[in-house]
Amino acid sequence: MTTDNQYWAMSSHPEGMPNKENFKLVSEKLDEPQFGQILIKTLYLTLDPYMRGRMRPGPSYAPGLKIDEIMTGEIVGIVEISNSKKIPIGSFVRSRSGWTKYSIKSDSEVTVLENSSHSISTSLGVLGMPGLTAYHGLLEIGKPKAGETLVVSAASGAVGALVGQIAKINGCRVVGTVGNDIKARYIKEELGFDFAINYKTENIEKKIKEFCPNGIDIYFDNVGGEITDIILNNLAYKARVIVCGQISLYNATKQPIGPRNLWSLIRTQSKIEGMLVSEYGDKKNKVAIDRISKWISDGKVKYKEDIVEGFENAPSAFERLFTGENFGKLLIKVSSV
Amino acid sequence: MTTDNQYWAMSSHPEGMPNKENFKLVSEKLDEPQFGQILIKTLYLTLDPYMRGRMRPGPSYAPGLKIDEIMTGEIVGIVEISNSKKIPIGSFVRSRSGWTKYSIKSDSEVTVLENSSHSISTSLGVLGMPGLTAYHGLLEIGKPKAGETLVVSAASGAVGALVGQIAKINGCRVVGTVGNDIKARYIKEELGFDFAINYKTENIEKKIKEFCPNGIDIYFDNVGGEITDIILNNLAYKARVIVCGQISLYNATKQPIGPRNLWSLIRTQSKIEGMLVSEYGDKKNKVAIDRISKWISDGKVKYKEDIVEGFENAPSAFERLFTGENFGKLLIKVSSV
Repeated sequence: MTTDNQYWAMSSHPEGMPNKENFKLVSEKLDEPQFGQILIKTLYLTLDPYMRGRMRPGPSYAPGLKIDEIMTGEIVGIVEISNSKKIPIGSFVRSRSGWTKYSIKSDSEVTVLENSSHSISTSLGVLGMPGLTAYHGLLEIGKPKAGETLVVSAASGAVGALVGQIAKINGCRVVGTVGNDIKARYIKEELGFDFAINYKTENIEKKIKEFCPNGIDIYFDNVGGEITDIILNNLAYKARVIVCGQISLYNATKQPIGPRNLWSLIRTQSKIEGMLVSEYGDKKNKVAIDRISKWISDGKVKYKEDIVEGFENAPSAFERLFTGENFGKLLIKVSSV
Repeated sequence: MTTDNQYWAMSSHPEGMPNKENFKLVSEKLDEPQFGQILIKTLYLTLDPYMRGRMRPGPSYAPGLKIDEIMTGEIVGIVEISNSKKIPIGSFVRSRSGWTKYSIKSDSEVTVLENSSHSISTSLGVLGMPGLTAYHGLLEIGKPKAGETLVVSAASGAVGALVGQIAKINGCRVVGTVGNDIKARYIKEELGFDFAINYKTENIEKKIKEFCPNGIDIYFDNVGGEITDIILNNLAYKARVIVCGQISLYNATKQPIGPRNLWSLIRTQSKIEGMLVSEYGDKKNKVAIDRISKWISDGKVKYKEDIVEGFENAPSAFERLFTGENFGKLLIKVSSV
C-alpha cells in the first residue's frame, strides 16, 4: 500500500523577499514504513525566520537547501502506520520532516509528545524551539537581575513575547519593540510589558531614552538593523546583548551597512553574544519546558498562535513573517486528527 | 620657594587628526607641597591612544577634557621635595599627573615604584597600563587554549605585542596585523609570532584565510574598521573577540559606517566583549605584573619602547600614534634623574 503525498520544495534561491516563485509543490507516493519506521500525518507545520537562511546559497550554521530539496522545518503529527515497537499508531510526535503532508521516519528520529494540558501545536512554539530559544538565551546569556531594564525586539513574536514575560517573572523592567499598535497594546495589556515602541511610527531613539533613562542592561535582539544600532548606543554598564536573529537583514540583496559601534562595548564594558538553541541539550531543555509549561498553567505566561489553514498556503504565509503581518507563532494547520 | 613648571593643555577639540593647534604650552609656578604632599619631577610621560577619546566633546567611559585643561596621562617621576612621611625624596613614583614637567600630589594618589631589574619606563608600558590591558584582556576574556588561533591587530604596539607573546606562551598560533614590513618582520623574528599581515600592502582577507584556515578563535581588537570586519567574517565556532581599542576610527569626522555583521555571531556562537583595564583591581594587577616581569627576565617576553626626547615634542609625537609611525610603546623623555 502506498500513500499519496505532497511536499513543498525550494525551486529557486530567493533574491530579496521570498515569494511563491521560489517554491514548488511536488507530488509523490510514499511506500510503507520499513522495520523501525513510522508514517506520520502532519497536523501542524511551523514557519520560522531561520528558514530564510537555509534558502540562501553559501554557508551558515547549518547546510543550505539545494534546488528541488524539500523545505526544512519541524512538524507535529500523528502516527498513521507503525512498524515500530516503540511508537504505536495514534501517537503524537514532533519531527524534522519538512514542509510535507506525510513523512516516513525512524522511531529514533522523532520525539513522542507526552500527554499535556496544552495543545500539541505549542510543541512547535512556546513549548518548542522558539520557547527554548527565549528561555536559554535570556537566562543563560542575559542573566537577568531584578530591577534591570531589558529591551526585546520583535516583541510580540514567538520568541520575543516569551523573553519579555520571563524577564518580568525575573523582576525586570521590560520594553518591547513591535511593528504596529495592536501588537504594542497586546504586549503591554496582555503580556504585562512595561513599555512598547512601534518602530514604524515612533521615534525609536527618543522612546528608548525615555523608557530606559539609565540605559539598557539586557537587549535580546531578534531583528538587527536600525533598532539594534540605537540600542547599542544606549547600553548600561556591563550590558549583555543576546543576538538571536537579524530578521530585518535576511532579505537584503546587498551587504547591509550601518554605523560601526563596537566602541560602545568598550565604553560600557558590555558584551554581545550570538545564540543558537541547538547548543543547550536535552537535560536543560527538559527543565526549561517543564518550567514554561508550569508558568502557562499558572497564568504567568501567555502565548499567541497565528494559525493559517491549509498546506497550500505555506509559501504565502512564510512571506508574512518578513512583512510583520503575522501576529504570534506562525503555524500551518495541515490536517486534523 | 616655588618651582617653575610647564604643562600641555588642550586648547581646542581636534577635528579629525589631532595637531599642534589643539595644544598649548602653559607656564606656571608651583608652590611647595603641603603636608602629606610631594613634588614630582617627570622623567617619562606616556602617550596612549585612549587620550584621543578624552579630547572629544561628549561622553565616554571617563569625563572628557575641558578647553585649557591639562592633558591627561600617566608619568613616572622622581620625588624632589617631600612633605610626606611615607615617600622620601628620591623615590620613583607613577602618577596620573598629566602632560607636565612637575606636579604636586598627595602621597595617597601615587604609586611608589619598587626596585626592579627593569627600567622605570616599563611601568608605563609592558609593566603598566598597556601590559595589564593585554594580560587581563587576553586571559580573562579571551581564555586562550593551546592550539587555538589568535589574531591581534596593531600587533607591534604596546598592547598588541604583549597579547601575541602571552598567546604564544599559552600555545596558540598567533597572527598579527601591522602597518609596515619592518613591524611585520619584528613580530615574527623578534617576538615569535607565527604570521604577520601588512594591512597597508597585503590583501587582508586572503591572508586571513590563508593563515587561519579553520577560522579565528580569539581576536584581540585594537583597531576596529576594515580589519575587524574581515575577522568577524572568519570566526571559528565559539570565538571570543576582545574589543580593546578602535584606533582606526578615533579621528573620524563623520559617523564611521561598515557592514552589519552580528549575524556571524549567531552562525559561530561567538561573543564580542568590551574591555577596560580599570575593571581588574589591585590584587589581579599585582599577579599580572609579577608574571609579566618574570617572563621578561626569563626572555619569554620582549618589549620595545619608542622614546622621544623633549617635553616640547609631546603633541607632534602624539600624532604619530595615529599615523602608525611609532614603533613600540611611545614615551616622552622629559627629564633625566
